[in-house]
Amino acid sequence: MSKKGKFAVILAGSGVFDGSEIHETTMTLYAIKKRGGDYEIFAPDIDQHHVVNHITGEEMQEKRNVLIEASRIARGDIKNLNEFNADDFDAVIFPGGFGVAKNLSTFAFDGADCSVNGDVENVIKAMAEQNKPIGALCISPVIVSKVLGEVKITIGQDQGTADAVKQMGATHEDTKHGQVTIDKKNKVFTTPCYMLDATILDIAEDTDNVVKAMMKEIK
Amino acid sequence: MSKKGKFAVILAGSGVFDGSEIHETTMTLYAIKKRGGDYEIFAPDIDQHHVVNHITGEEMQEKRNVLIEASRIARGDIKNLNEFNADDFDAVIFPGGFGVAKNLSTFAFDGADCSVNGDVENVIKAMAEQNKPIGALCISPVIVSKVLGEVKITIGQDQGTADAVKQMGATHEDTKHGQVTIDKKNKVFTTPCYMLDATILDIAEDTDNVVKAMMKEIK
Repeated sequence: MSKKGKFAVILAGSGVFDGSEIHETTMTLYAIKKRGGDYEIFAPDIDQHHVVNHITGEEMQEKRNVLIEASRIARGDIKNLNEFNADDFDAVIFPGGFGVAKNLSTFAFDGADCSVNGDVENVIKAMAEQNKPIGALCISPVIVSKVLGEVKITIGQDQGTADAVKQMGATHEDTKHGQVTIDKKNKVFTTPCYMLDATILDIAEDTDNVVKAMMKEIK
Repeated sequence: MSKKGKFAVILAGSGVFDGSEIHETTMTLYAIKKRGGDYEIFAPDIDQHHVVNHITGEEMQEKRNVLIEASRIARGDIKNLNEFNADDFDAVIFPGGFGVAKNLSTFAFDGADCSVNGDVENVIKAMAEQNKPIGALCISPVIVSKVLGEVKITIGQDQGTADAVKQMGATHEDTKHGQVTIDKKNKVFTTPCYMLDATILDIAEDTDNVVKAMMKEIK
């Protein structure tokens, strides 16, 4: 494994409104490489919940596959999430985007009562069992909270979402850009990204800070 | 206008094999903002030539629209390219990706005899007439060469593509990562990006260097 850490980056499609947020994902990949780490990209081989026209916000009458769409960001270099093995990685990180709340879980529809995709749940549990760092950006901390329960996370300052993660048993911390909430015991690292108003400069800062904090905890 | 320059970023879809290359686009947006500039994103409202499964490389039996797909990278904040007005911008830049050679032009099929999308041609001509900087990454210099003819550009080191741009009347310069070919007279700035083997670190370096060079020429 890379001395600075081999990261698994888990995607939910390609596009903020129905998949993974593209800037958050790209800047995460950049931060990992810039700091001397390496990555492999994964996504589940499932249908997207729906397809959204990102100009109008309206649903399009199409079917798309999460793994195939996520491969656009990965330039084809992506694996089915059911092939993930925690032994092969030092850390896992989930960029944000509504796909996390619609494809990787049902959070967008069911809130605190949501279910989490089985492969995603396995990844989070396996990394937690090995006490390896788990990173989650933007809305992604909701799935980590749902799977692990008693963790400390941030989703920025959105009260409704904060209340939902508290119902799941998690502790929420309000944050601004540049801040990373660190749950030292559970090795969970979260940062707000586009859960707050942001430019791409904020995304660069947040992703870099979370990757840096995670790398410090890689043995 | 921004003191450091307002850039028009012209996209061809979302994904390296049938649209705009996502890392090149995201890192271009980042470089512009990081260096104190600003941007607006445009794409033509046309069908993609085709849709490619980025895992298998195979064509999918779908129809997608260049503007709608490009809006995924732009988070919905995008304009139809036919609304572009050169008076509103200090510079224009074209990220790469096969979409440039399949959607913005027919270069992938017709080589030196290709045609260029009318809106794209108008943008390049209008900026050239005002002697404003034109940036082009990866494969995009082929469309600048086709429209302007006698320019000096780089597409990295691919001999076949270099021969084609020479047939269009352009001069080609071999480059490595980090290098920007500058045609001072015509204010054309080009850099190889994924036309060479590259990691996302190379893309960060190339995009930052080309944006930096362009900003120096903004009045």
